[in-house]
Amino acid sequence: MNVTIVGATGLVGRTMLRVLHERNFPVTTLTLLASPRSAGTTIPFAGQQVAVLPLSAETIPTNTIALFSAGGAASRQWAPQFAERGNVVIDNSSAWRMDPTVPLVVPGVNSADAQLHRGIIANPNCSTIQMVPVLDAIHKRYGLKRVVVSTYQSPSGAGQQGVDQLQAELAGQEPTSRITPLPLAYNAVFHTIEGVGHGSEEELKMQRETRRIMHLDDLRMAVTCVRVPVLGGHAESLAIETVAPIDADVLRAELAAVQGVVVQDDPARHLYPTPQGSSGSDLVHVGRIRRDDSVEHGVLLWIVADNLRVGAATNAVRIAELLLPVPTTPA
Amino acid sequence: MNVTIVGATGLVGRTMLRVLHERNFPVTTLTLLASPRSAGTTIPFAGQQVAVLPLSAETIPTNTIALFSAGGAASRQWAPQFAERGNVVIDNSSAWRMDPTVPLVVPGVNSADAQLHRGIIANPNCSTIQMVPVLDAIHKRYGLKRVVVSTYQSPSGAGQQGVDQLQAELAGQEPTSRITPLPLAYNAVFHTIEGVGHGSEEELKMQRETRRIMHLDDLRMAVTCVRVPVLGGHAESLAIETVAPIDADVLRAELAAVQGVVVQDDPARHLYPTPQGSSGSDLVHVGRIRRDDSVEHGVLLWIVADNLRVGAATNAVRIAELLLPVPTTPA
Repeated sequence: MNVTIVGATGLVGRTMLRVLHERNFPVTTLTLLASPRSAGTTIPFAGQQVAVLPLSAETIPTNTIALFSAGGAASRQWAPQFAERGNVVIDNSSAWRMDPTVPLVVPGVNSADAQLHRGIIANPNCSTIQMVPVLDAIHKRYGLKRVVVSTYQSPSGAGQQGVDQLQAELAGQEPTSRITPLPLAYNAVFHTIEGVGHGSEEELKMQRETRRIMHLDDLRMAVTCVRVPVLGGHAESLAIETVAPIDADVLRAELAAVQGVVVQDDPARHLYPTPQGSSGSDLVHVGRIRRDDSVEHGVLLWIVADNLRVGAATNAVRIAELLLPVPTTPA
Repeated sequence: MNVTIVGATGLVGRTMLRVLHERNFPVTTLTLLASPRSAGTTIPFAGQQVAVLPLSAETIPTNTIALFSAGGAASRQWAPQFAERGNVVIDNSSAWRMDPTVPLVVPGVNSADAQLHRGIIANPNCSTIQMVPVLDAIHKRYGLKRVVVSTYQSPSGAGQQGVDQLQAELAGQEPTSRITPLPLAYNAVFHTIEGVGHGSEEELKMQRETRRIMHLDDLRMAVTCVRVPVLGGHAESLAIETVAPIDADVLRAELAAVQGVVVQDDPARHLYPTPQGSSGSDLVHVGRIRRDDSVEHGVLLWIVADNLRVGAATNAVRIAELLLPVPTTPA
């Protein structure tokens, strides 16, 4: 397969390269593109130095899988032009996620939707991607009634700028750029919020995208998204109410059998998912699985994943894998 | 009033001294006690240096208000002996909180309970203290049906040792002591947990103590308590389901009128409660007040308070204020 990465110099773009390599994705040719400002460097891939070219009408390739992580504005401008030239765009921005003609896909949950694409497939929001495999497994067996989720998210979700702001502040320095005017260090802050009484952009994304991926338009969700001073990954505290009776011990075993999910749940021995512990992993980590006795049928649990991998790069590459020709079995 | 502080050299003990001074508590004599290991220093109070004496059978004062913050073991050992000598103990540990003969008090919520004491009054858990004034105001008007809460707590809740572990790790040093074997820096961790499927100590405290303070033995609560790398205060994300219809705008005005509560809720302008923003304040900060459309009647909101002050020292001093003789009005 010919592969293009748009936004190759960014935090997610670089992670996409690592994940392609680690997963032995069959890369025939690799095109790296970035904004004219970021282009001109080279990035190593599979033992070679690959030049990063400036994204322009002239550098649009043909017939590649194009992994986009260059922000919403770039996606809106360039993704349709890429699609026109026979590329399949897998876009990490929020630009196309709610477009009914663009599939929004978490492999393993709604893989079949990917085949309906017309040249663009959207990669969901990071905090959504790590949650839906767990919700999907629970829904199939017990029926979801209501989900209450509060997140503990890394500023790396906003890219290198978020990491830089946090690290500058922790070092006692004035950040050169900011993702929020409030301090990130030693603090807990929200994503962009339109007004009083509104959900944040991130909270609305989690709600809308989860419903769309799971084909549950009326799923009842209460979402609060918070950024905390962590780097390795996003964590989520969930209270899940189900239609059918649910047992925490049975669920623990069931979730351990879900592809891409690992259960870590021996908290007396300090074994449970943490942002640091999930860093660098392609698995969704689940723990603190407990009965919720405040509802008739319900569980509490804790989900953690590396937001740059599981929540962005790895999910994009897993979508790309859905597009690979199915190997024919020799007779 | 004669005042004693037991555990005067600790993080909460020192904060108690500051709060006594700031609130102009009528201190006639001040006795500072600490473990023999920590005694021997002097601590400034109201312009004087006060010696810290070793806590022993010989140094137990008589007829003082004794603010204890020396841990559960010391409280269990010494509080009854203090009470026997005519002291009223206000104890910050968890040792007496669930003892039916010991009132558990948050002034403004269940002040009257303080008068039932037999020599010991328990100061609730920090994360409980900041939550109940808000729950109480909502319950009185709308009736509480269910509360789901996830916390974002400062390691300072475990005392100076928690602060030291976090700061050593952030500085790239090996901590000299730890409150958890897991890293606190760039991480999210839980309090002590007995076993698989159990709530942590902190989670059980929030449940039991909230029910006891509010005299709502059957209050339905789902609690998840998490430590994050913040210092200024504890934050809490709440989903509150009520019996009666509740309107976020009306509630915003009602909470702003609650004594000891301040509403900060203009998130488009980055005005909302944060751990850094609540640090040093004696107020409970509430914001992100939103309708929860995942239930028939409900709201989501965000509560932040300085855990060493609101959640410990200030609540203890406010309990002490309940014990002051009521001033007589001249004819």
